[in-house]
Amino acid sequence: MAVITIVGAGMMGSALAFPASENGNDVRLVGTPLDREIIDTCLKTGRHPKFEKDFLPGVQYFQIEELSSALCGADLVIGGVSSFGVEWFGDFVLPKIEDSIPVLSVTKGLWDTEEGELLSYPDIWKKKTEAMGKKLSINAIGGPCTSYELVAHDQTEVAFCGEDMTVLRRLKKWMETDYYHISLSTDVLGIESAVALKNGYALGIALTIGLNQKEFGIESPLHYNSQAAVFGQAFKEMYKLLELQGAWSLENIAVGTGDLYVTVYGGRTRLVGILLGRGMNIDEAKEALSGVTLESLVVAKRVARAIRIKASKGKANLADFPLLIHVDEIISEGKAVSIPWNSFTFEK
Amino acid sequence: MAVITIVGAGMMGSALAFPASENGNDVRLVGTPLDREIIDTCLKTGRHPKFEKDFLPGVQYFQIEELSSALCGADLVIGGVSSFGVEWFGDFVLPKIEDSIPVLSVTKGLWDTEEGELLSYPDIWKKKTEAMGKKLSINAIGGPCTSYELVAHDQTEVAFCGEDMTVLRRLKKWMETDYYHISLSTDVLGIESAVALKNGYALGIALTIGLNQKEFGIESPLHYNSQAAVFGQAFKEMYKLLELQGAWSLENIAVGTGDLYVTVYGGRTRLVGILLGRGMNIDEAKEALSGVTLESLVVAKRVARAIRIKASKGKANLADFPLLIHVDEIISEGKAVSIPWNSFTFEK
Repeated sequence: MAVITIVGAGMMGSALAFPASENGNDVRLVGTPLDREIIDTCLKTGRHPKFEKDFLPGVQYFQIEELSSALCGADLVIGGVSSFGVEWFGDFVLPKIEDSIPVLSVTKGLWDTEEGELLSYPDIWKKKTEAMGKKLSINAIGGPCTSYELVAHDQTEVAFCGEDMTVLRRLKKWMETDYYHISLSTDVLGIESAVALKNGYALGIALTIGLNQKEFGIESPLHYNSQAAVFGQAFKEMYKLLELQGAWSLENIAVGTGDLYVTVYGGRTRLVGILLGRGMNIDEAKEALSGVTLESLVVAKRVARAIRIKASKGKANLADFPLLIHVDEIISEGKAVSIPWNSFTFEK
Repeated sequence: MAVITIVGAGMMGSALAFPASENGNDVRLVGTPLDREIIDTCLKTGRHPKFEKDFLPGVQYFQIEELSSALCGADLVIGGVSSFGVEWFGDFVLPKIEDSIPVLSVTKGLWDTEEGELLSYPDIWKKKTEAMGKKLSINAIGGPCTSYELVAHDQTEVAFCGEDMTVLRRLKKWMETDYYHISLSTDVLGIESAVALKNGYALGIALTIGLNQKEFGIESPLHYNSQAAVFGQAFKEMYKLLELQGAWSLENIAVGTGDLYVTVYGGRTRLVGILLGRGMNIDEAKEALSGVTLESLVVAKRVARAIRIKASKGKANLADFPLLIHVDEIISEGKAVSIPWNSFTFEK
């Protein structure tokens, strides 16, 4: 059907090679400069080093020096970089893509400005490439999807967002399978804002797991009342952030809520939260997890910083975000965990 | 501080004896006719047969024949019956309560009428007692709280709802502890509608666990993409139900979302969902769980019935509730599980 070039061979970018190639598309997986060993492994074994399943035989692998060949004749470029790769992707990859080729990014997050505005990555990339005289169609993926479950063909539902519904429908046709279900939205800022806080709030929920372990023992069974209380508060704050962004809709908040649900159970953010809840400070927790970078929490810091600026200008109310502010104090200032339960209750 | 009489010695009613008595209130626990053995055990051991902790020494226990003594001098009556006890509570208990004594019910659910209206239990009880010439203050508790975690002093946040904020503040003063946090709302129908579907949807989410076990093996690790997809859809449908009820608010849906989160992990609804997902029909699943009554799913059936009636009158759109309708087909009609993934996606 189409030639799909994925730039970024991390887990999420690489996972998308599965629905893409199973649909009969020609798939080319290109490593960033940080992915050199991953691509070497793929070339040798036909499998991503972190996956338990081989890629389909037709998938081709490219080192970054071969980017131009990998882009030649592509119908779609999928951007699979992390938040840390956003500038690199904008400076190094996007200028090489022809305007007629749509881009679909899996990088979730927001970028804060000194004025306290929060911009989506597609918006940043669009401005940057327009300044170069380009007119790219830059789309993005939001919603709950862990890479290894996508590889396993678990039923998964995500949202593709972008400015042009016609383009989005084409992307859906290429990527949708009987396990990868795709909603379409022209509200890019809404979808990206809805999922921006999921890592910070997944950490907030995990704090309660650690707090309970401190109280009842590390081997005690999982408890859920306190997780649910923080989940409910996280939901309220995600809603308030969407309102601040002028981007509230039922669909957006539903995507964000599902994404938060899946993130509570995934990976290192949860582990960090549990360690913090048990009583470590953020440096001790990072140390215990061997200097993990916590890329996922960068966005929570940025949103907190932006909301503080907005609040100082009278454009936001910090009292709407007690959980975010506390998570930020923990990860940015090294404060001890002390969940502000009373600020979660309401009288109405 | 106050004399608090709890009628219904099931797990949730009995659990409330902990914050109530720890606050220095005199607590009286009264069994329904179904709770006779529980009260016998409490009298003998000072402990509820399903709890791992004794009641505080001052708590007193009463069989149903002693209800009048237990009500004498009470400042608050807590109703702790199940959905099946709603009529009994209205017919047998409420008439015995003086109008000056507020009632606080833990029974979650809605009651459907032949016209497709969905009424809250406080509303039904209010009409019933008003017809007797009484003027009771009937309040209710919503929000995520499992009884055994409350007994364990886990951090828990709930919402008390009722018509009079002054009464609600008094109830909060009596019941709030450093682990039991209470929001207050005068929107009774909103809070009750927000949590009405949690069991049906917790079952819906658990279906995906069983489906994955069928595909990957019963011992396979839990997967979350598909749970999150159903969670997001459940959220959307809970929102739509609140809209239908004319009772949408951010606080209401946050209470419902937290309650759904906790219910996914609790008890028999989850087990039933997993068995159905693995391929059993509803009768086989009930059989496997030794004829469990699934009280929790009664409300989902009622809401589905009401929405079908509303839809037949053009007052609701069945397409807004594909998950509820499928859950209802499974539990009411014995249909096989076939999650309507494509109806969950949107284009907007």
